[in-house]
Amino acid sequence: MEKNVSIERANELANETLLESKYEIIPLEVAHGRILHSSLTSNVNDPIFDNSSMDGWAVKESDCISLPCKLSIIGTIQAGKESNFVVEKGTACRIMTGAPMPKGANAIVMIEDSIIENNMVVINGPARQNYIRKKGENIVKDEIGLKKGVQLQPSQLAMAALMGYSVIPVTIPPVIGIIGTGDELVKPGDELKPGQIYETNSTALAGLITNIGCVPKKYPFVSDDLSSLREIFDIASSECDVIITSGGVSMGEWDLVRRLMEEEGLIKFWRVLIKPGGPPLFGTWKETPLFGLPGNPVSSQISFMKLVFPWISKSLSFDNQNGPKLFDRVRVKLLSDAKGTPNKITYRRVIIQLNGNELTGIVPLNQGSGNLRSMVECNGLIELKKGANGKSGDFIDALWFR
Amino acid sequence: MEKNVSIERANELANETLLESKYEIIPLEVAHGRILHSSLTSNVNDPIFDNSSMDGWAVKESDCISLPCKLSIIGTIQAGKESNFVVEKGTACRIMTGAPMPKGANAIVMIEDSIIENNMVVINGPARQNYIRKKGENIVKDEIGLKKGVQLQPSQLAMAALMGYSVIPVTIPPVIGIIGTGDELVKPGDELKPGQIYETNSTALAGLITNIGCVPKKYPFVSDDLSSLREIFDIASSECDVIITSGGVSMGEWDLVRRLMEEEGLIKFWRVLIKPGGPPLFGTWKETPLFGLPGNPVSSQISFMKLVFPWISKSLSFDNQNGPKLFDRVRVKLLSDAKGTPNKITYRRVIIQLNGNELTGIVPLNQGSGNLRSMVECNGLIELKKGANGKSGDFIDALWFR
Repeated sequence: MEKNVSIERANELANETLLESKYEIIPLEVAHGRILHSSLTSNVNDPIFDNSSMDGWAVKESDCISLPCKLSIIGTIQAGKESNFVVEKGTACRIMTGAPMPKGANAIVMIEDSIIENNMVVINGPARQNYIRKKGENIVKDEIGLKKGVQLQPSQLAMAALMGYSVIPVTIPPVIGIIGTGDELVKPGDELKPGQIYETNSTALAGLITNIGCVPKKYPFVSDDLSSLREIFDIASSECDVIITSGGVSMGEWDLVRRLMEEEGLIKFWRVLIKPGGPPLFGTWKETPLFGLPGNPVSSQISFMKLVFPWISKSLSFDNQNGPKLFDRVRVKLLSDAKGTPNKITYRRVIIQLNGNELTGIVPLNQGSGNLRSMVECNGLIELKKGANGKSGDFIDALWFR
Repeated sequence: MEKNVSIERANELANETLLESKYEIIPLEVAHGRILHSSLTSNVNDPIFDNSSMDGWAVKESDCISLPCKLSIIGTIQAGKESNFVVEKGTACRIMTGAPMPKGANAIVMIEDSIIENNMVVINGPARQNYIRKKGENIVKDEIGLKKGVQLQPSQLAMAALMGYSVIPVTIPPVIGIIGTGDELVKPGDELKPGQIYETNSTALAGLITNIGCVPKKYPFVSDDLSSLREIFDIASSECDVIITSGGVSMGEWDLVRRLMEEEGLIKFWRVLIKPGGPPLFGTWKETPLFGLPGNPVSSQISFMKLVFPWISKSLSFDNQNGPKLFDRVRVKLLSDAKGTPNKITYRRVIIQLNGNELTGIVPLNQGSGNLRSMVECNGLIELKKGANGKSGDFIDALWFR
């Protein structure tokens, strides 16, 4: 077991025990939010054929050099219809948006730039080649149009449709068990006895897990009792791909997750040089990877973002650009001071706003790791390197929640 | 009917026919992504009682002014347990993280700063008042903790739990019917005949609708035939709260959505001064609001973002900060030139990246409104005001996709 490791080292150690990434083939219609398991090549060119981007006239550009000019009408081509029209010198064919270009034509005149007189059309505006969408100009057949590891959002889903896919291979979402620990915890809405509080971490963790395309499975929370914890670890390890616990990982004798993992499981690291969120551990319980996250609500979410998310991302090969994300990395100009910590990387909640050309950050005072409300009122975290403080006016790295 | 209106005017006109916002009460556990229908006040103080933020010793600060000092141990307070301990002068009580402060104590010493000797504890480090989390310091009972119109993301869900809610009032998601039109459209995966293409817009629109917490309902797409369109309008208006059509809204005689709405429906506006995405219309079909969006894939998505989304947002009172969003507004420094349009606001797809302290934007060349792939390769839109061009080096408004 390594102790007091950097975030990078913690990520490295966790990455020695990755999850296996499995896939299933599902209809495109139910794929929203899922992760594409392998890159998709296009089954077609896009456009599939040269077509008009306007309602207008398909013409020979050379016929329309001096305007106005008069051309004989040979017919109309609608979208979706095949045609055998051939545009010869001195003729024009009416064409609808999206309809295939007829043979012989190499330019389009907009319908607004024309008047029909008997069987002739008078052209008053320019004939343009760039009103033609050329076959394959967006993507050619067999080219990769969607990369492995992207999360299927509206444009990605539409792109899969464009490429001709009605079913696609997506990653089977790992099931992540959530086990809250602590004698003081009560289900929201139940009666509170003195000393008790409502349990919130399993709710936040379930939401974070869902947002990155995985499936949360909540277990009843466990009182501070070694044998019930052992029992629920056994059940969860048989039902889940990963276990996340909340609380019970500090140094105290009542920190049972740490004790049980130390005595009967396998711990790869314990304690990370990060604030808030210092006490997490990672290891395995009967071969099931287990993240022991701290019990403070803010610590819990931050350690999920910095430890669990990168590990899931690596396991399931999330695409850096278009994979699931919990935040975007930006730079913000501080509008208030922010205190760091000598040996630890420090995250402080921040209100990020657009101010002129810059993103600015206000760091509120109450940064207690129990202050869940600050995660609702703020929309990001600033990242202070080891020993660094932030001064009003400084530009600083920030994670902007999505 | 007003023609060629600005986006602002289009939004105004649509807002004259808002949707009614209805609600239902559901368990917190299934509320992820839903919209909170009314503000929630806290049922409890947070913290509920003064408690320790550390494993340590509850002491009188005045006992620990000159260190080291030696105090008698009177007992241990665990989290979740009531205790009747009273810390008198010269005594200390062992206390776990989250456990309620005993009477008489006004400060905490960290466990790391102490050694136990027989029944006494030797204190070597400071006794701090700010290791106590004060009752109500994060939120007080009856204060609003979550605002109406927020989308329930992990922190919001946890906040509802913290405030004691097991069930919450959420907006009933409007059902939005999607009707694609066009003779050239074929279902993805089916055989393509000459002149045909795969239909993609209903897929993208369904994804956008889902992302803002509403429910898409797809109808079979309609060929360019007035009577089948009329029939499906009737069905959709009886089954849906809103109808979105795709295609058929331009000036041509085959643009049947526009024709049918003109002849038998009610149009409030047609054509908006925006590029791409100029031809949309808005009106009602038998009292059901109907957005006629353009058929080009990029136009379709942009007009959803700029016309449909603001209308839904207004109808359902989305919170500006934490309501559903399709993009964040930022400023980017252009790394390439971008051409605007004389009388229209122009959106161009852009690749937004973090570069030093700035977000920069590269505007790729192929900006055809049929180029769906560009919506996958880019991650935002720059916004060029009427008649304005963007030059490399300029800072410019951009919509950063989420």
